[in-house]
This record gives sequence, C-alpha cells and structure tokens, in this order.
Amino acid sequence: MTGDKICSTVLKEIVPGEGEKKALLEFAEHIISRIDEAAKELGVDAHGLLVGSVAKGTWISGDLDLDIFIMLPETISEEEMESLGLQIAKRVATKYEERYAEHPYLKAFFGGYAVDLVPCFSVSNPASIKSAVDRTPFHNEYIKARINGLENEVRLLKQFMKGIGVYGAELRTMGFSGYLCELLVLKYGSFLNVLQSAKGWRRGVIIGIEDHKGHEHDAPLVVIDPVDPSRNVAAAVSLDKFCMFIDVSRTFLKTPDISFFFPPEVKPMTDDELVDELKQRGMDVFAIVFKAPDVVDDVLYPQLYKALKSIEELLHRNDFRVFHGDVWSNSNSVILLEMEIARLPPIKMHMGPPVESVTHAEKFKAKHANCHPYIRSGRYAVEIPRKYADVNALLKSELQTCSLGKHVSEAIENGYRVLKNAQIIKIDDEEFRVFLRKYFRKR
Amino acid sequence: MTGDKICSTVLKEIVPGEGEKKALLEFAEHIISRIDEAAKELGVDAHGLLVGSVAKGTWISGDLDLDIFIMLPETISEEEMESLGLQIAKRVATKYEERYAEHPYLKAFFGGYAVDLVPCFSVSNPASIKSAVDRTPFHNEYIKARINGLENEVRLLKQFMKGIGVYGAELRTMGFSGYLCELLVLKYGSFLNVLQSAKGWRRGVIIGIEDHKGHEHDAPLVVIDPVDPSRNVAAAVSLDKFCMFIDVSRTFLKTPDISFFFPPEVKPMTDDELVDELKQRGMDVFAIVFKAPDVVDDVLYPQLYKALKSIEELLHRNDFRVFHGDVWSNSNSVILLEMEIARLPPIKMHMGPPVESVTHAEKFKAKHANCHPYIRSGRYAVEIPRKYADVNALLKSELQTCSLGKHVSEAIENGYRVLKNAQIIKIDDEEFRVFLRKYFRKR
Repeated sequence: MTGDKICSTVLKEIVPGEGEKKALLEFAEHIISRIDEAAKELGVDAHGLLVGSVAKGTWISGDLDLDIFIMLPETISEEEMESLGLQIAKRVATKYEERYAEHPYLKAFFGGYAVDLVPCFSVSNPASIKSAVDRTPFHNEYIKARINGLENEVRLLKQFMKGIGVYGAELRTMGFSGYLCELLVLKYGSFLNVLQSAKGWRRGVIIGIEDHKGHEHDAPLVVIDPVDPSRNVAAAVSLDKFCMFIDVSRTFLKTPDISFFFPPEVKPMTDDELVDELKQRGMDVFAIVFKAPDVVDDVLYPQLYKALKSIEELLHRNDFRVFHGDVWSNSNSVILLEMEIARLPPIKMHMGPPVESVTHAEKFKAKHANCHPYIRSGRYAVEIPRKYADVNALLKSELQTCSLGKHVSEAIENGYRVLKNAQIIKIDDEEFRVFLRKYFRKR
Repeated sequence: MTGDKICSTVLKEIVPGEGEKKALLEFAEHIISRIDEAAKELGVDAHGLLVGSVAKGTWISGDLDLDIFIMLPETISEEEMESLGLQIAKRVATKYEERYAEHPYLKAFFGGYAVDLVPCFSVSNPASIKSAVDRTPFHNEYIKARINGLENEVRLLKQFMKGIGVYGAELRTMGFSGYLCELLVLKYGSFLNVLQSAKGWRRGVIIGIEDHKGHEHDAPLVVIDPVDPSRNVAAAVSLDKFCMFIDVSRTFLKTPDISFFFPPEVKPMTDDELVDELKQRGMDVFAIVFKAPDVVDDVLYPQLYKALKSIEELLHRNDFRVFHGDVWSNSNSVILLEMEIARLPPIKMHMGPPVESVTHAEKFKAKHANCHPYIRSGRYAVEIPRKYADVNALLKSELQTCSLGKHVSEAIENGYRVLKNAQIIKIDDEEFRVFLRKYFRKR
C-alpha cells in the first residue's frame, strides 16, 4: 500500500462522524452555558470558552475529553482568579477530581465525557498573560483561523505519533503536543510533508511558522510559537523522542504500513516470560518499589527520573556499572536498574599520597597501618575492605542519601522494597508487565 | 638500639674476615695470571683485570662471585675481540656456561667460586669506549682511588638495599647497582647520610658526584656518572624501587631495626594457605603458565612485563578490570592476573551513529536488523552478544594476538596453560610460592 492509501484507510478510523461531532459540540455548549450562568449567579464577570482539539476540530474520533476554560478578568488577583474559577467550576460539575498544574482545576465527569474545567485570566493579548494557561485561548484562535481544510492531516500526524509512542508533552512522555502537531501541519501543508521534512532534521533545528525571529533555545527541536515568539513550542520534546520521530519518519516513507498508526497491542509479560528473559540476559535486575506518591504525573515523573539518575551515580561511585535504568508508576512506583556489574570483590585498592608528600604519607600510613601499605606507581596504596560488595547492600544502606525529589523521598521513607531478578514477578500489575515487555523489546 | 649500634652489629656479619679476603684475592691473581699466559700462548696482546666489588673492596662477606675482564686491544674488530676473548676464557675455565649480555662472556666455576670472564676493549679513556662493558674498568679505577675508608659504609648500604629488596640493576629487579651504592656513599660520606639524603628525595632529583653538568634524563633518580657525565648511573632504578628506598629510609631513621638488613626468610605459601588467601580476597586469579624461554633474565623480564601490559590492555578492551598483575619466572614462566571483574553478562550495548547520519544509520540498522536497534541519547544502539563473557575464554582465543615479545611469544606458541584460582596450586615450585606470599602480603 502507498502512503496515501494508508492515510485514507487510517482516516476512516480516526475522523469523527457527524453524530459524534454534533453530540460533542452540543455538550460543550451546554457546559459553557452552565458556566456563564454560574458566573452570573456569583456576580463574577466570567464566561466559558471551549479550547483544545475539539474547539479546533482536530480531535481523534472517540477522544471525548474536552477542555473548557473559565475566563476571568485580568484585573483580579491570582488567588481570586483561582478561588472564583473553582467556585464556578464546582457549581457546574457534580462528579470531579481537583487537580493541580500551574493552578488548580477540576477534572469533571459527565456520563461518557471527561471535561477539564480550567480557570484562567482573560487577557487582551499574549504579551500580557499571567500564567501558561492564559496562552491557550490564543493558540486556539491562531489554529482555528488557519487550520481550515487541514484538520485530517493533523489527525493523521497525531495518530502516527501516538502509534510510535512520541505523542504527548507531559513529563512522563516528553513528546510532541497536539498544538505542536497542528503547527507542523500548518508549516508543511500535510502529514506526509511533515514526515518528509522530519527525515532531514538535525538536533537544534529551528522551525519558524511565521517570519518571527526566534530566541536562543537549548533543545533538540525548536518550533517558534507564533503567538509568543520567545517560546519554544517543542521545549518538552526529549532528544530521544525527537530522534525516534526522525527515524520512524524515514522508515515509514520508505516502507509505509498501517501498523505505524495502529501498532499491535503490547501484551503484559507473564511470570514465565519474565524469568526467561532475565535468564537470557544474564544481568542482575533490581526493582526499587514503593507506594506512588499522590501527585500528578507531571510532578511525579521528573522526580522519578531525578531519583534514577541520582541512584545511578551512587552505583557508579561505588564501582558498579548500570547497563540501563528506567522508571514506571501506577499505584506503585518502580525504579528499575539493570546491572552490568552488580557484585564486586570484598576488597578494593585505595590509593594514597605520593611518597614525596611526607606529612600526608605519615598520616596515610598511620591510618592504614594494619592493611600493609605498599607502593604503586610512586604512591602509597592499601587494599581495604570494600564498603559495599553488592548492589542490594548498597541500596539498603544508602538509597535515602540520594537526591530523590520531595515526594519520592517521602514515599520511600514510608517504606520500600528492593526486588532482585525473579522476585520482580511479585509486582503483579498488568501495566507494569506491559512496561517490562517494552523495556526488554523495544527500548 | 640506635642506628649506629645496629650498623656495627650488621658489619660483624657482612665484613669479610682476613682469611676470606686473602683467599679471594689470591684466587683472583691466579686466574689473572692464567689469562695472561693463555693470551701469550695465543699470541694475543691481552691481559686479565679484576673488577667489581672484590677489586674495589666493597664485597659482602660470603659473596664469592668474581668479575675478571679480559682486556683486548681497541685496534681489533668487535668480532675479533669477542672470539679472541672467548678463546682465552675457554683456555682458563674448565666448567663454564656461555652467557650473553651486550657481548658473549663465560660464567666459569672453580670450586666454590663463580667467575664472570668478560672480554672487553682496553681503551685509553671513557670517551672512546665501544660498548658498555668497556666502561667498567674506569668505574673501578674511579672508586678504588676514592673509596679508601668508606668500604664498610658501602657494605651497609648494599646490605640494607638487599634486605628491603631494591638492590640490583638487572631488569628483573630494576633497583640500585653496586656502583650506584658506591657513588652515593662517596657523595654523602656514610650509609646513614645516604638515608638522610634519601628521606628528602623527590622524583627527578639529580645528584652530581663531581662538578659535572648533567644531561637531560627522564628518570625518577639521576646520578651523573663521574666517568661519563652524559650517563645516568641510576637509569635502571624504577619509580617504585626509588620510592621504596625513600620510604624505608624514613622508617629506618625513625625506628631503626636490624630486620631491615636481615628480614625474616619468606616461607613458600602452602596449598592450604593459597586456597585460603584466594577465598578471602574473593577475586578470580588467573595464571598463564608456559615453559620459560632459554634466555637471560635481562632479556626475559622486559618481555614478560611487556606481555603483562599487553594482556592487561586486551582485558580492558573487553571490559574486564584487572586489579593487579605480576610476572615470575624460573623453569616455568608465569603471568599472574588478579581480576576485579572476570565475568560479564552475555550481552553488551553497542552504540551506533547519531540518528542524523542517514547513510551510517541505514548501514547500522541493516547490519543489526535482528537485534532491534533502538535510540539512546540521540544515537542508535543495539544489544549484541558479548564476544567474551569471561576471562578464560578471552585468553584462550586472543592471548597470542597480544604483543608478547619474541621469546615469550615463541614459548607460548609451544604451549601454555591458563590456571584459575585453586588450580594455581598445580604450580609446585618453592620459589613461585615465595613469590606468591610476597605478592599477597608485601606488594
């Protein structure tokens, strides 16, 4: 099948039908009118505004998540904006969870719909925004004014990115946002043209949508926000997600296949498969397991990655070698460490001062008198017991000295386990087993 | 006991008695007269000359080794000098071994005496020497003219250096020669003064005996040869022997003890001790064992050290870590390798080109298609089988690719064994067991 043929097949799956469209927009209008009413009742000069992919007409069929902003006057204080906005939202929603990004908002549930009700300042232009959410209505306007006719190209790009695992700007994924997909389609005119361009991208590439001059950004991909030229829309894209997109774009253009959009479902690894895999790889694998702290992914994942990095440094400082590490979280959080070297001899060499440094030499010899200091390459040296001869002992003693991030640190203080090799089958969570299969097969 | 008291006690042991002196010198005169006769019989203008520590009066009691040079005219060719010299020597000696340093010479045995009979050119001054041995008679003259009264100080220094293991300029030891000891005593006036000076030596120190300006030397210790100021008498001294001498000088001056001169005999390690030691250290020890090539130590040891270094590099290239290595030789040669890491997982990570290098990327992905290339830090990476997962397998396959030196290489081609851990007890040689105890205890 050619690329074009595949695209039309994919579109059949992902373009919402008229019924879905109508129902979604009617529902959105209904919520907005309830926001407007609630504002009036509370005597607040506020109104609802549909933003996000539904507003822009670029959502993928079946994605029934709505973003509705509660626009409040820019003259009030941040605290007032937050509290009035939440008051209005709570009048509209009956079933909801309070969430927190830069500001608090509600994730509300109405039948099959999930609606993010987000208070923000209604500002006159993007230069006067007070927080990142205030920018969203301007992104919305920008796309709505230009996307006409390209909606399905955006849908293709989003579905492609979902399929290959680079979609989503959250800090768990560090990939491409919906807005970024829309801008790329505007810039290059079609889904396939975006891929053609991506084929030749190099890290540090700067893409301007309008004729704006960009600012300096230290990121693999820079896409200048037409609404705020000082901002890099692709700031969240990690080097590896950037590279994956380039790599898969090349492969797709050469050998297009529908499986890029709809990859086979990844089945959870069974106990037997896991034990087999560990045996074949012959490396000691450690899982540090603790109850996931009750914070959103965008707070949790940076802390988990930070913890992973800090633990890897601890291991290196103690002469162990990490082959690869990763993190995962659901109700439990897991820091996974696959070790090239997880055991060391009980003694190690400890080098002292050069023989010429008389004062240091005397101190060193006195300190290590019972270890028989000798001379090696002009310095004193002793063989001393190694503090930690295996990873388990090191983690048990020193894990909490690592920079783990506030919430992860607290969670670990409340208790953690270190599972080794086959013990990992104790983590009986389907999603973790999916993560493990991806870890071992597709990394 | 004070340093002085210890010195007088030591001297009682090491100063030859009148009887020993008389017998030795009479025997030397007898050999010299036979050399002179043999030269006359052969019609060669040559004569014998006593050199070395007996000539200079600085030998240690019981050391019955004599150095007698056969002085030949400088007008003849090198080949003539060698052949005529050996002819004369063979007329004098009945029981001998032919040896080879820069030139051939005889090690002859007469009753309890061993005599090196060394042909050389009789040159008028040190500037016209044709090979290193020709310089020896001048060293002899220089010391004989000045050492009067300091002979016992030289004996003390030699015995001290023997006791602490830094005496001998051969390439097996890389320590201090007898001539170097004599010069140091001339320079500083006494044994204890040499130690006082050594306390403050730093690597690169330059010691002039006369007012000569020295040349540039890249050595830890430079002692300018008064007979040939371009020459460093201490060129053979390795950094570690230099440092050991400094270190032990300090310790002796602080806490003098007779055991520095006469250390307790090192007993060979027993099988049980060896097995115990290996268990306690918890490191895999490998011994590469082969029949010692039939060459002198000064040829063999540099090759063994070179082989050790080359093998260590091979191990590092393959991700193993050497804790320490050493060499030993008797009838068998042994290269000993104590491993911090001797086993690795069966797979390793192999990094490929960055994603942007399209041509290399395609080649890499094609080559490793069945290993599932993935992206890591902006580069392609694959997990591939490790060629050697343990040291044994690596040594079995690749030892002969190392730079081993001509004779070691030939010896290894004729067969070698790799013994691991307790298998080392198969090396049933008392001297090797002494070496092992020193290796484990006093390194």
